[in-house]
Amino acid sequence: MLSCPSSAGFHSCHATKPNMLNVHLVPHTHDDVGWLKTVDQYYYGDRNDIQHAGVQYILDSVVDQLLKNPDRRFIYVETAFFYRWWKQQSSSMQQTVKQLVNEGRLEFVNGGWCMSDEATTHYSAVIDQMTMGLRFLNETFGPCGRPRVAWHIDPFGHAREHASMFAQMGYDGFFFGRLDYQDRARRMVKREQELLWRASNSLTPPMADLFTGILPNGYNPPEGFCWDQSCDDPPIRDDPDLEDYNVDDVVKRFLTIANSQAMVYKTNHIIMTMGSDFQYENANLWYKNLDKLIRYVNGQQANGSKVNVLYSTPSCYLQELHRANLTWALKTDDFFPYADDAHDFWTGYFTSRPALKRYERISNSNLQTCNQLEILGGPVSRKGPFGDGESQTMKKAMAVAQHHDAVSGTEKQHVANDYARRLANGWQHCQVFQVLRGITLLNILCKLHLYAFSKPYMHDIVHLYFLLKTEYLCVHVLQFIRVTFDPDTGLLSSLSNLETKQTIKLTQNFYWLIIHLYCIHLPLQTPVVQEVRQWFAPWVSQVVRLYGDSRALELEWTVGPLPIDDDLGKEVITRLDTSIKTSEYFYTDSNGREMLQRKKDFRPTWNLSQSEPIAGNYYPINSRAFIKDDVDQLTVVTDRSQGGGSLQNGSLEIMLHRRLLYDDVRGVGEPLNESSGVFPEGLVVRGCLRLSLDRPPSAADAHRPLAQQVVLQPLLTFTDGDLHPNTQLEFSGLQAALPPAVHLLTLTQWDKDSVLLRLEHQFQSQESKVNSHPVTVNLIVFFAMAKISRFSWCCGIAITALKCIILKCLGFPLNTVYFIFKHTAHWQGEGFLNCTFCP
Amino acid sequence: MLSCPSSAGFHSCHATKPNMLNVHLVPHTHDDVGWLKTVDQYYYGDRNDIQHAGVQYILDSVVDQLLKNPDRRFIYVETAFFYRWWKQQSSSMQQTVKQLVNEGRLEFVNGGWCMSDEATTHYSAVIDQMTMGLRFLNETFGPCGRPRVAWHIDPFGHAREHASMFAQMGYDGFFFGRLDYQDRARRMVKREQELLWRASNSLTPPMADLFTGILPNGYNPPEGFCWDQSCDDPPIRDDPDLEDYNVDDVVKRFLTIANSQAMVYKTNHIIMTMGSDFQYENANLWYKNLDKLIRYVNGQQANGSKVNVLYSTPSCYLQELHRANLTWALKTDDFFPYADDAHDFWTGYFTSRPALKRYERISNSNLQTCNQLEILGGPVSRKGPFGDGESQTMKKAMAVAQHHDAVSGTEKQHVANDYARRLANGWQHCQVFQVLRGITLLNILCKLHLYAFSKPYMHDIVHLYFLLKTEYLCVHVLQFIRVTFDPDTGLLSSLSNLETKQTIKLTQNFYWLIIHLYCIHLPLQTPVVQEVRQWFAPWVSQVVRLYGDSRALELEWTVGPLPIDDDLGKEVITRLDTSIKTSEYFYTDSNGREMLQRKKDFRPTWNLSQSEPIAGNYYPINSRAFIKDDVDQLTVVTDRSQGGGSLQNGSLEIMLHRRLLYDDVRGVGEPLNESSGVFPEGLVVRGCLRLSLDRPPSAADAHRPLAQQVVLQPLLTFTDGDLHPNTQLEFSGLQAALPPAVHLLTLTQWDKDSVLLRLEHQFQSQESKVNSHPVTVNLIVFFAMAKISRFSWCCGIAITALKCIILKCLGFPLNTVYFIFKHTAHWQGEGFLNCTFCP
Repeated sequence: MLSCPSSAGFHSCHATKPNMLNVHLVPHTHDDVGWLKTVDQYYYGDRNDIQHAGVQYILDSVVDQLLKNPDRRFIYVETAFFYRWWKQQSSSMQQTVKQLVNEGRLEFVNGGWCMSDEATTHYSAVIDQMTMGLRFLNETFGPCGRPRVAWHIDPFGHAREHASMFAQMGYDGFFFGRLDYQDRARRMVKREQELLWRASNSLTPPMADLFTGILPNGYNPPEGFCWDQSCDDPPIRDDPDLEDYNVDDVVKRFLTIANSQAMVYKTNHIIMTMGSDFQYENANLWYKNLDKLIRYVNGQQANGSKVNVLYSTPSCYLQELHRANLTWALKTDDFFPYADDAHDFWTGYFTSRPALKRYERISNSNLQTCNQLEILGGPVSRKGPFGDGESQTMKKAMAVAQHHDAVSGTEKQHVANDYARRLANGWQHCQVFQVLRGITLLNILCKLHLYAFSKPYMHDIVHLYFLLKTEYLCVHVLQFIRVTFDPDTGLLSSLSNLETKQTIKLTQNFYWLIIHLYCIHLPLQTPVVQEVRQWFAPWVSQVVRLYGDSRALELEWTVGPLPIDDDLGKEVITRLDTSIKTSEYFYTDSNGREMLQRKKDFRPTWNLSQSEPIAGNYYPINSRAFIKDDVDQLTVVTDRSQGGGSLQNGSLEIMLHRRLLYDDVRGVGEPLNESSGVFPEGLVVRGCLRLSLDRPPSAADAHRPLAQQVVLQPLLTFTDGDLHPNTQLEFSGLQAALPPAVHLLTLTQWDKDSVLLRLEHQFQSQESKVNSHPVTVNLIVFFAMAKISRFSWCCGIAITALKCIILKCLGFPLNTVYFIFKHTAHWQGEGFLNCTFCP
Repeated sequence: MLSCPSSAGFHSCHATKPNMLNVHLVPHTHDDVGWLKTVDQYYYGDRNDIQHAGVQYILDSVVDQLLKNPDRRFIYVETAFFYRWWKQQSSSMQQTVKQLVNEGRLEFVNGGWCMSDEATTHYSAVIDQMTMGLRFLNETFGPCGRPRVAWHIDPFGHAREHASMFAQMGYDGFFFGRLDYQDRARRMVKREQELLWRASNSLTPPMADLFTGILPNGYNPPEGFCWDQSCDDPPIRDDPDLEDYNVDDVVKRFLTIANSQAMVYKTNHIIMTMGSDFQYENANLWYKNLDKLIRYVNGQQANGSKVNVLYSTPSCYLQELHRANLTWALKTDDFFPYADDAHDFWTGYFTSRPALKRYERISNSNLQTCNQLEILGGPVSRKGPFGDGESQTMKKAMAVAQHHDAVSGTEKQHVANDYARRLANGWQHCQVFQVLRGITLLNILCKLHLYAFSKPYMHDIVHLYFLLKTEYLCVHVLQFIRVTFDPDTGLLSSLSNLETKQTIKLTQNFYWLIIHLYCIHLPLQTPVVQEVRQWFAPWVSQVVRLYGDSRALELEWTVGPLPIDDDLGKEVITRLDTSIKTSEYFYTDSNGREMLQRKKDFRPTWNLSQSEPIAGNYYPINSRAFIKDDVDQLTVVTDRSQGGGSLQNGSLEIMLHRRLLYDDVRGVGEPLNESSGVFPEGLVVRGCLRLSLDRPPSAADAHRPLAQQVVLQPLLTFTDGDLHPNTQLEFSGLQAALPPAVHLLTLTQWDKDSVLLRLEHQFQSQESKVNSHPVTVNLIVFFAMAKISRFSWCCGIAITALKCIILKCLGFPLNTVYFIFKHTAHWQGEGFLNCTFCP
């Protein structure tokens, strides 16, 4: 990695005063990549009737204002917007901006395409979106454009896996704004708002250690000091002829706030975020007043004041904290669930917009397929009616969908529609599918799931690819599992794993209020599949399905339209009640990767005062959750992000769908009440839960591959005529199957003559006796890279005779190989720099 | 007058295309000098919770943006704000701005301290505020800063006297935005939205002729083309990769609008005001999109479009109209009353905030006294506890009070309070009063009127100056007038002028609903004064007063607090019903100067469809109104601006006070419901109407001096002890009385060694047999200018032996002498350039 020239980076930080309280003012804007408006509307400043926000103007204005005073600083976060703005600038403006970056006056932080949600995103998509943003910054600005700090000031709770990824990507620190109000209160008293987050159980410290700072005012300025055009705080009126001259008052208020803030942090440096949502559209307002604030507050030093204010950035602030050489409190759990008040838990969004959440997940799967097929198909597969290299459309659609108001479901309805539209567009633009239809029928599909979407154009997509006929079903039935039903109620009553000879009592029902079971059907019993159909209400049904070749029980639920004629919103859960003795523990994954232990009415870090017995016990389930005791582990693999909890011994509940009639007063300004032309009565959603009953020591051997299969499901493709006799019906890009512990995370074109390959060890440390061990992979053996004769490692060492790498348990960088088949002198967007080679 | 160098002014206008429709885009901001916020709050951008507006940022931003593209233009109007901003700029920024002005990229229009109200302002105060603004521009920018165009885009109707003043001040044209909706509709059809206003009956054309343009959209941009941060119109999205690319749509919509607008104007040039209230705080939004608009619309010329768009200014537009060499429709009346819809007449504000209106009027009087005393008192009178030259405080307070949301009464309550506070401050700062108290008791006062104000600090003022004791009354009774009362009702029944032997029947009552007369008192009958006290309701009373030395009957009314316990707002009028045969005509003054004839349900210019029989017949009464027939003229002189009408034969009604419970939905956002700590039950207002009964041919000989006496009333001053035996009790700055036709309009210090003197002929042409003639004044005879040895004329010709000037009837510049006792090479702020000398 090349470092930024000495003129920039830390060298551009303003001097501080060791014997004073140094207040780091960080001018910033928080630009949601969609929320109340779509990403396009935000960029251009369209639909300002909904919310006044125009990112093009923000960047115009900030650059102008930075040029007016070299002391000024600004940070920018969301590369999706910056990239777009950059494209529209003249080369002289681009040179100007490069100069500002090189001088450290404009600093990028975080730098991903968006600021991803942490509860409902899958790690693979987060890595992709971070790669896209960081790559642009690297290729545009080189080392001086490299973000040193991760900056998740708005996401509604924080996943440990995100911190782990940030640590492994080489960030120096992480700042955020939202955490449980009880946790914050405790940390303020104990001065533990700055801490060391040990973000992995699998990685050897300090591999996933990350300094983490909690910002003092969320990401807003202190009260009374917001000088954006969107704020109403009094400007500094420093005309001495004016009767309402207020400099003395402003200085006094500021000193009070600064000294108060210093009481709850450890060093003689404090940070103040001077900005907020879409601020700095007219940066003059902010900077003009900040210039004055700095001048007048520091002017008081002549009168004995010990407060020193300066323009700063998160990395400059962080540098001062590092210099303080303190030991920070250690944290090993995560920051979920997030509550901003005793009765305001942000846990419903774990499930909000279940159709969008599923569509995002399946889009990720298809993007990976598209990426791989583009490589396997060669250049011809990237040429089509929509132009070249069209996986870019889906990549960008997926990248914006990771935003914390996208897949999270916290955006307005029309914005949710826009994300879905972008994804649909991405599907259409993946030219390789067009090519494939003429060449090959990828007849590797096994199961059909038709997911309900609320938008008409989604139906077009469905129409395009899902014309499956039943005779294509190709699996063979093997009997691994047995379920029984209660003859009186029709409900599930037990689940058995016939291989391990495990049986647990299992009852399942759906809840919002008491729902009457209507009947049971047994319409299908074939060598391939056995089905039981259940109706719980006109708007709740389920198919219980056993496949011959699967060790998982499939519960295909259909929920909706949720009735609202009683003027009550509803959140529908399904609850599994078992004989497993859970002692109030259960486990959920973090972004689809490592598992975290949860306990009812308990937080590992502080003494919880539980105010919400249900919402306060809900956690994000990204890909799976399990309950276990010494002998039995029941794992539920989900097909999308959902919220869930274990509120009783042996019980696991998952929220499937929700429909609300009132806005939650958190800004979105409309109730989450999904309906559309296709579903005028309210959205109907269908999805799958896959249940696996195993012995705890070997459960991961089942749920790891099962979850990956659900995340990366086969792509269904069809021809519209008879098959040509010579049609190739089977094909694999791998010359041999990868070992079970190894997962091909990424294989995609990087540029014209480079390919990005990411392998990872997909088992967590100690979760599997068989698989939680290092594994050696000989690339030459596995990959049919006929066309690629030479390749290089990400770490910059050209190796032409590479044979093998060692993958250790879950984690970056040592255990996952991220490399590009081309030498590059710059830091890579994804930031994975160290490789381990065969001895 | 020096002209602006050839590089600027008209020479900087962009080229137009003779064979195309040229669309002049005029970027502008309309910055109220107080309305929803105070002038200070507007300047600094304080209280943005009330309204987002910060003028300091507007000027910052506009200058920045003008520098980015030399094609861009901007006009600025309100010197009260510009002056303030200018003071805070660095000298290099000042140089930059001068360059922009010299190059015609930043053009000043109007240029007064504020954009004065036209219904409720007195011409003398308007001249003062225009002088203050124009003088600053002249001294700062020289000839290139001279506004060529008057620009009253927002005032609620337009006074003929304003147009007359503008014409005489040398403006090339006048633009405004508001006129009666019927009038506009008619003018659109007849293409008469551009016209020649002949604005005086006294001045020989073209002395008061002024080209007048009515703007197409008030002062707003055409619908869909507002790109300010305060607007929600779609920005131009010209990224061709973007799905919502809208350039084609924008161009199409613009061409449609431009062609429609051209249909209602006469030339192949049209103007579009691209801006509105407090817009351009972030000028980048506007200019970025305007740049694109011009590029894309003109780009269509290659495809045969005949529309040419350009950045322009009102003076560049006006130049093109002049080049068209057309004859414009002639107008000789005024633009009152203003209605924006059939039932929305803006006539209530003629009376709104009667206490403020009176306070403004009396402040003007005291300012003139202060000005004169500063000169007479010499340098010592300008030094006091508040510093030097302190009539400036009052001058500025009076200048902002002329704003069309100030004395008009259309501002929010707290803003009205602020205007009053500024005036009060002006009184305190007039150091000469402090000096006088120690030197001289100006015992020239005759009558006492205590006016009620709703604010505590006004009471301080009252306390300071109005400690009058009754024994100071110094007039002698002479019997000029007789009134009789109806013994049954107690109401007035007749009025007689004993000199002319005229008697008319006169009844007077107060109306909102039927009010019962309580009783009559006759408490005072002295050689000095005779009084009759009348009560009409607990909240309406009146003293009918005859002074021995006055030919006017004084009706001192007291109204308030208006009861609202019936949940009804109220507008209280007093109506005089007489035996005069008015034939539905009556007469009101225009800004205190020329009189205009009014007729019930009639407009001189168009065929009125009357929809509001009362509000639609109300007109502003600035200083007087009269009704007459062949033998009798009853003139009512008011002590402040009020609204009034004549709805029945022989009748004249005047609205005295109003209190409303609902906002009028015109933006102010609060009902006009005045009350405060002093008047918690609602404001009590007291005022005087002075009635004069005369023969029509000689009525002006009475009402002209009477009105001036009311406008410029004696200043009451007191000592707190016994008089020193040597105290000078009488003093006059004049060595002899001026002829009755001559009025000393202004006498004030101009700078350290210059004085501004304005004399005017105060009679209208033909209104008086005695006084409506030219009059010769020998300055040396009248003025005791011992200290001033030399003086010069405004026209730039130094004359040391000046003796006399000829004053003709009402009007500028020939009939009023405006001169400064110092030679100046530049145009004078007030713009009065031509003088007439003795033969």
